[in-house]
Amino acid sequence: MTTDRFDATPRTRVKRLPDRGSYDRALVHAILDEGIICHVGITVEGQPFVLPMAYARRGDALLLHGSSASRLLKSLAGGIHACVTVTHLDGLVIARSTFHHSMNYRSVVALGTATPILDPERKLQALADLVEHLVPGRGPDARPPNDQEMKATTILDFPLTEVSAKVRSGPPGDEPEDLALPHWAGVIPMTTQYGHPEAAPDLSAKGPIPPYLIEYRRTRS
Amino acid sequence: MTTDRFDATPRTRVKRLPDRGSYDRALVHAILDEGIICHVGITVEGQPFVLPMAYARRGDALLLHGSSASRLLKSLAGGIHACVTVTHLDGLVIARSTFHHSMNYRSVVALGTATPILDPERKLQALADLVEHLVPGRGPDARPPNDQEMKATTILDFPLTEVSAKVRSGPPGDEPEDLALPHWAGVIPMTTQYGHPEAAPDLSAKGPIPPYLIEYRRTRS
Repeated sequence: MTTDRFDATPRTRVKRLPDRGSYDRALVHAILDEGIICHVGITVEGQPFVLPMAYARRGDALLLHGSSASRLLKSLAGGIHACVTVTHLDGLVIARSTFHHSMNYRSVVALGTATPILDPERKLQALADLVEHLVPGRGPDARPPNDQEMKATTILDFPLTEVSAKVRSGPPGDEPEDLALPHWAGVIPMTTQYGHPEAAPDLSAKGPIPPYLIEYRRTRS
Repeated sequence: MTTDRFDATPRTRVKRLPDRGSYDRALVHAILDEGIICHVGITVEGQPFVLPMAYARRGDALLLHGSSASRLLKSLAGGIHACVTVTHLDGLVIARSTFHHSMNYRSVVALGTATPILDPERKLQALADLVEHLVPGRGPDARPPNDQEMKATTILDFPLTEVSAKVRSGPPGDEPEDLALPHWAGVIPMTTQYGHPEAAPDLSAKGPIPPYLIEYRRTRS
């Protein structure tokens, strides 16, 4: 049964500043849907490695995408413990005190293990979901992958089970006795800007830039 | 002796698409200096955790900053193996083939262990370096930390020893036989936009927004 919250476990419960923590499913989904890359952590011979990866959310799972030749993908496909983290920076928090300088952000941390999607039909659908997540509308407007390209691509299913979100928003939290200080305080907002599409130098296709690429934006929850 | 390159080790050598890998010191420094948060990976009881953290580079070391009460900071301060990764997304690469869709990015992966900075003078300087990294010019324009705040803050020194950078840039790398396809191809550039500073609702300080906060930008290498 799907509920509106993930269960907090001892490993995902937000301990530090718990009021910033959330297990709300809609919030977790919104943060994940806005992102383009995640940072994936695995441990190899006692050494953690953290690498950026493309992903998409499908229901209560992440699709992780990479080259079949990649060490990270091979390790993940082997079912080792992993952590997938997605972070959006929303602003620099400028406080009157050095101590209360901070950042506004939204992040999701998911613990679990991945399974490779091997069934050709499911894999093709997963690839379509990944393209749709990255560039909505692009899927039908590109050459589909051939067998060799499908083999060279690994797509992993990473179920969202142990998940928490953490959010900081709003103005600085200065101490009451600092409010009268002469220092400016507030927030410098941060957003990701998507520019006008730049055509490849060897582009021979005539016609306008497809509408889905112009004013490309990612939904802000 | 400082050379212009980090030594590639078996653990940091870029194996997948090695032409995207670099150990160039100036490139590594530039990528790190442009960032605001890193993703730090540690392993606790076999489970990797990846969490976003504020940082600054000072010479060939990173300063990692967080609350003394944080589990992550405590674990890191204990000297466990860690991985610090900084990633900048520069663009969405729209290829004629589904397979060659990609992202332009610059990332740095650093392996090592951290040491807490305990000496009060060094710690105060490290905090000043962190503020200067986040908001150049802000340092002198904020109330300095008091003893209690210094105690509540942990700053770690994370030497850059095993480090690699990875960069993808430029147009899509479509196959020669796909160049004549009718699909548009190119790059949607991505940048981080810093907006106009938003004053805290309880701001009593008179006077204009400080110049160092207006048109806040991070140097692009």
